[in-house]
Amino acid sequence: MPSRIILFICTFFLISLCSFSFADEMMNSDETEECLGCHTELHPGLVGSWLKSRHAHNSPLQALAKPKLERRVSAKAIPDELQQVSVGCYECHSLRTDQHADSFEHNGYQINVVVSPDDCATCHTEEREQYAKNIMAHAYANLVDNSLYRDFITVVNNHYTYNDKTLTIGAQDLLTEYESCLYCHGTKVEVIEIETRDTDFGELDFPVLEGWPNQGVGRINPDGSKGACTSCHPRHAFSIEVARQPYTCSECHKGPDVPAYKVYEVSKHGNIFSSTKSEYNFDRVPWVIGRDFTAPTCASCHASLIVTEDESVIAERTHQYNDRLAWRLFGVPYAHPHPLDADLKNVVNSDGLPLAVEMDGTPVQQFVLSKDQQEEHTERMKTICNSCHSTQWTDNHFIRLDNTIVKTNAITLEATKILSDIWGQGFEQGLPHGKNIFDQEAERMWTTVWLFYANSTRFASAMAGGGDYGVFANGRYQSSEQITKLFERLKLYEALHK
Amino acid sequence: MPSRIILFICTFFLISLCSFSFADEMMNSDETEECLGCHTELHPGLVGSWLKSRHAHNSPLQALAKPKLERRVSAKAIPDELQQVSVGCYECHSLRTDQHADSFEHNGYQINVVVSPDDCATCHTEEREQYAKNIMAHAYANLVDNSLYRDFITVVNNHYTYNDKTLTIGAQDLLTEYESCLYCHGTKVEVIEIETRDTDFGELDFPVLEGWPNQGVGRINPDGSKGACTSCHPRHAFSIEVARQPYTCSECHKGPDVPAYKVYEVSKHGNIFSSTKSEYNFDRVPWVIGRDFTAPTCASCHASLIVTEDESVIAERTHQYNDRLAWRLFGVPYAHPHPLDADLKNVVNSDGLPLAVEMDGTPVQQFVLSKDQQEEHTERMKTICNSCHSTQWTDNHFIRLDNTIVKTNAITLEATKILSDIWGQGFEQGLPHGKNIFDQEAERMWTTVWLFYANSTRFASAMAGGGDYGVFANGRYQSSEQITKLFERLKLYEALHK
Amino acid sequence: MPSRIILFICTFFLISLCSFSFADEMMNSDETEECLGCHTELHPGLVGSWLKSRHAHNSPLQALAKPKLERRVSAKAIPDELQQVSVGCYECHSLRTDQHADSFEHNGYQINVVVSPDDCATCHTEEREQYAKNIMAHAYANLVDNSLYRDFITVVNNHYTYNDKTLTIGAQDLLTEYESCLYCHGTKVEVIEIETRDTDFGELDFPVLEGWPNQGVGRINPDGSKGACTSCHPRHAFSIEVARQPYTCSECHKGPDVPAYKVYEVSKHGNIFSSTKSEYNFDRVPWVIGRDFTAPTCASCHASLIVTEDESVIAERTHQYNDRLAWRLFGVPYAHPHPLDADLKNVVNSDGLPLAVEMDGTPVQQFVLSKDQQEEHTERMKTICNSCHSTQWTDNHFIRLDNTIVKTNAITLEATKILSDIWGQGFEQGLPHGKNIFDQEAERMWTTVWLFYANSTRFASAMAGGGDYGVFANGRYQSSEQITKLFERLKLYEALHK
Repeated sequence: MPSRIILFICTFFLISLCSFSFADEMMNSDETEECLGCHTELHPGLVGSWLKSRHAHNSPLQALAKPKLERRVSAKAIPDELQQVSVGCYECHSLRTDQHADSFEHNGYQINVVVSPDDCATCHTEEREQYAKNIMAHAYANLVDNSLYRDFITVVNNHYTYNDKTLTIGAQDLLTEYESCLYCHGTKVEVIEIETRDTDFGELDFPVLEGWPNQGVGRINPDGSKGACTSCHPRHAFSIEVARQPYTCSECHKGPDVPAYKVYEVSKHGNIFSSTKSEYNFDRVPWVIGRDFTAPTCASCHASLIVTEDESVIAERTHQYNDRLAWRLFGVPYAHPHPLDADLKNVVNSDGLPLAVEMDGTPVQQFVLSKDQQEEHTERMKTICNSCHSTQWTDNHFIRLDNTIVKTNAITLEATKILSDIWGQGFEQGLPHGKNIFDQEAERMWTTVWLFYANSTRFASAMAGGGDYGVFANGRYQSSEQITKLFERLKLYEALHK
Repeated sequence: MPSRIILFICTFFLISLCSFSFADEMMNSDETEECLGCHTELHPGLVGSWLKSRHAHNSPLQALAKPKLERRVSAKAIPDELQQVSVGCYECHSLRTDQHADSFEHNGYQINVVVSPDDCATCHTEEREQYAKNIMAHAYANLVDNSLYRDFITVVNNHYTYNDKTLTIGAQDLLTEYESCLYCHGTKVEVIEIETRDTDFGELDFPVLEGWPNQGVGRINPDGSKGACTSCHPRHAFSIEVARQPYTCSECHKGPDVPAYKVYEVSKHGNIFSSTKSEYNFDRVPWVIGRDFTAPTCASCHASLIVTEDESVIAERTHQYNDRLAWRLFGVPYAHPHPLDADLKNVVNSDGLPLAVEMDGTPVQQFVLSKDQQEEHTERMKTICNSCHSTQWTDNHFIRLDNTIVKTNAITLEATKILSDIWGQGFEQGLPHGKNIFDQEAERMWTTVWLFYANSTRFASAMAGGGDYGVFANGRYQSSEQITKLFERLKLYEALHK
Repeated sequence: MPSRIILFICTFFLISLCSFSFADEMMNSDETEECLGCHTELHPGLVGSWLKSRHAHNSPLQALAKPKLERRVSAKAIPDELQQVSVGCYECHSLRTDQHADSFEHNGYQINVVVSPDDCATCHTEEREQYAKNIMAHAYANLVDNSLYRDFITVVNNHYTYNDKTLTIGAQDLLTEYESCLYCHGTKVEVIEIETRDTDFGELDFPVLEGWPNQGVGRINPDGSKGACTSCHPRHAFSIEVARQPYTCSECHKGPDVPAYKVYEVSKHGNIFSSTKSEYNFDRVPWVIGRDFTAPTCASCHASLIVTEDESVIAERTHQYNDRLAWRLFGVPYAHPHPLDADLKNVVNSDGLPLAVEMDGTPVQQFVLSKDQQEEHTERMKTICNSCHSTQWTDNHFIRLDNTIVKTNAITLEATKILSDIWGQGFEQGLPHGKNIFDQEAERMWTTVWLFYANSTRFASAMAGGGDYGVFANGRYQSSEQITKLFERLKLYEALHK
């Protein structure tokens, strides 16, 4: 019995220490305290999540005082009124209200429903600027304003009707698109009206938002900005710990069109991560390779500031992830050098299609990285690889990746030649007829060749692992099978039309 | 060197404290001590698992003494002889022996092989009662006694023979069914004989069980009860920690017919869970939102008692999971309002099919929740959502889900119309011919439309995430492709029969 | 404030203790210190990983001094010069240089690029000997030197060309094979030249390796040895903790051809592991069942030395994993008794095919385990099962597995009969025509029946779980669908050729 009492006392003592040390870091503004007054009861989970965040226990002033490499804010200056308080409800939801169409009067305060990247830029300026140059920030318009992808969306998301021996594709359905393509690409969030609602605190007015909720990477916000920091730093903890773990990326990079997470999971890197992550430090800034982590996560190679024990910088922090990427691997019929500009609205190939690549796989050079620029991007990535691997190891890895890009593009080209023959003989209606190229059976078989199988094969290669995703799990087994089937489909068309 | 000695002493001291505090909680009955005498050696893993359980270190009396919200037992009264001992081997395996066909004399004691929900009800009365009203408790008969599903089982599980240009489906194989459908649905566990076995302890008699082992949710036990608490509270730890984690549900809710876990895994909730779970407390009762966990697991929304820091109840504990569910999303050609009664034996539609929905998607109202009842169920769920999300956020989520149910039912209807045409022209033999509707090529294509693709799309919608499962991973990409293929199959039949 | 200071002091004190206790275990050789002099800067991640390893903090002398069951080395004697230093860079990369084609002069030392199993055998002799008898050690030649599998590789990995209405399969591409089949099976690593490279430390010579990097289980090393210990004990931690976790096995055992990890993940074992692993001890040797772990991982059943609390041995450590396996479940058209010899080069069936099984599913007895030997292997496995399960439970499990092997072989046979009919009528060119049996549409359908669906069904059965992988996730649903499609394909061929 006494021993239990001792244990209890020890535990209590330790907990008290922790509590004290947390308690005296709380420094909420009066406004935030007022928010918490009601919202702690209304949204206990949300508030609980924020209470565990770094935002709740640090002021921007403290953040700015850190040594450069440890600093998590990048603004040169932070407005005075924000400096000495925690980063609370009011601090984030009251910024730039004049630019927020979703701003509304709420219990005497002007509040925005949506906190946008341009709001976060108040403290995280550089990250926001980098992200704007990231192709992800433009994911909305790059998809829905691209006439070819619009045809694709139509085929996938719209309703089908079978009547009088005919299968017809119906009209666009926004609600469907919100939880389909736009779940990841982002919706356009717009205020459509102001609604008066009866609440526990009496009648209150709220803006009604179209396209809400959404946390897609290219979300169009009510202040006109693009993106959602919460895609990777989920509300209301906004933590770097979450963003640094691969689960975050898996939300949008798991499907057969872009199986990055699935490949990572069964790669050597993923194995070591899963087996040893409980010993990693996902919080520390800067992130020390070999000490804070031994196997890289997505963030290690694509985003984070990585240093050695003695704080020499291996990789600078970036939120423009293509900084270290030479190729655009997925989402296009042929992998091609990464686009120069994140906004793809002007991209067009010689067939007049909105693609930075020709239908035979040749990149349209004016829109994409030059060989030298590609080399530069690859070198940045190799620096990270070489922190754990020999030069030969790393170089051979990239030689294999280049080969795989060539080979997967080549099989796509052969599939395109078969499809062209099908089009040429009029069995299906596509490019030569000015019709949707995704909506008939052989066209769909062709789509799957590049959208799933070539992509999967390339990801397995790019991440030096996940052997199966390069062979049996939507890899070469399936692409070779699919081209055989596509060829047989052509022969069947010919047999039936003889 | 001295420093290592100090470390050793500290460690030893802490370990001793822990050991002492465990040791004095042991209070096994004499019978259980006798069981442990042999079985610790025979089944060290099993006993080790139990030793780590709450059952091994608490008596029902202690459990009953807890404040109401913290209490893990729900019986009004617990038999005297059980009150002051740990919940050991004998306490569970000796209950209600007169009702157990699997009861046998074992070293002077009457022992049951299988511990059933009705045994667990001795202490966990309310949970058992709720579970009986859960559709999962009836998973065995709802499947195998439904003539339509029996046809389906035949097609999937039975052997095929190719002879004389004919493909024939063979007879039922119970062993196959045990590890196929019945792995999750539960087997019928029956005593078929008593066998004498030569053991390390001499000749002993044991009941021989058909359908054993099995932990399916609707298992028919030798005492006639339905279900297996061990489906989610696996032996012999029976822990709430395991049941509260999504891996438990993944055992039966991962396949393409019901990809709940896969969707969760790549949802925002799943991401936060995976990234931060090491900080969660999966043990505490009641479960405090925002403190014990910040992102919900399956249990948080569907089962657990959830409270705020100040112990106001957000959701009552329930083991009747449809309490918070308005819809039956999967396992039926069309999603429809949740059935009123968990036992579906009387359900029949106007075609005489054992379904609570017509073949055109209209629910058979007498067997399912009314609109008002659906509203009630949804409201219960929304209370949980609103703990972290705004009203608008939550409402819009459910508007999208309703839309997705309508749209996925609609595509199933169009597929059904094509299949009807195939049947009508006699290309395949189905409903109009009184034949199995699952066994021919177009029928199988039709099945996959709703069983995999519509379900997957609905789960992605219902869980507000897993974008890919609504599009490229068995979602809208595949359902639109499949209806195109089904239409082409009809055209091929027509071309060949011209 | 004072409380934070106390917390800081306590933390500092604890950390100091740990550091001291680590520090005084460092005992690097002078050579290794010299390696570290440059490579800590060049490869901080690699060195950091090694610094966390047991190799960095123990000498072979200390390892040999452990009690037998706790010993992690199995060599009878270890060379004197290695005994009293840590297992550092130089100790591993300088062994048996005369047998290493990849040995080169590096700053005054003779260094091997690749450390091979024969090098590791210096300390881990028994493990290396066992592994050599493991079929995995022969994964390279068993695949690429088997004429039938070579045909298969050709179909999957080679390039296709569509020209003049003909689809042609092109030439072998080694770079593709390295990251496809050979990623898991292992490459042949050969020195092709010596290259002079300009480094930060001046001009240096390095051997240029073909087939490098690779960590496949059957890698052919530059010293002629087979295998890569790093497949499962990844560099440079070489930890047992990683090898004991299922993520390691998932690297090669996840795809649809061998979904062991996927099945495990959703099995009861996998659920308990995922839910409770944070309480497991993955490091302790020997591994105590019920204390160090409560649910088994892959290693528990297939490799590890498992003991009870009182150190009685349940299973001996083995690196010849088929020791406990009666069947070869995957990678062959029909599951058959495990091959007698790990090297399959002499295996041939009565059709002259390099398989230990006839095309009708009969095993070729001379190459496989006898019934008695199978029984022996199964008994070894059952001993482990019975540590947690009753005899009846375990026996019934294996009865179901045997049944599933019979049934999945049977459906493969029916598919083979349909394919034979297709070949017989000349619709496709296969076995009777001496042609590749994998390259046409019906042949590919047939391949998928056994390579994916039969395998998946068998794994779900063998691991007593993952119900879905036996039904809807590449299981019986798909195999029954596929045989229906294959039959329809035959009928279509007949209709078109009438």
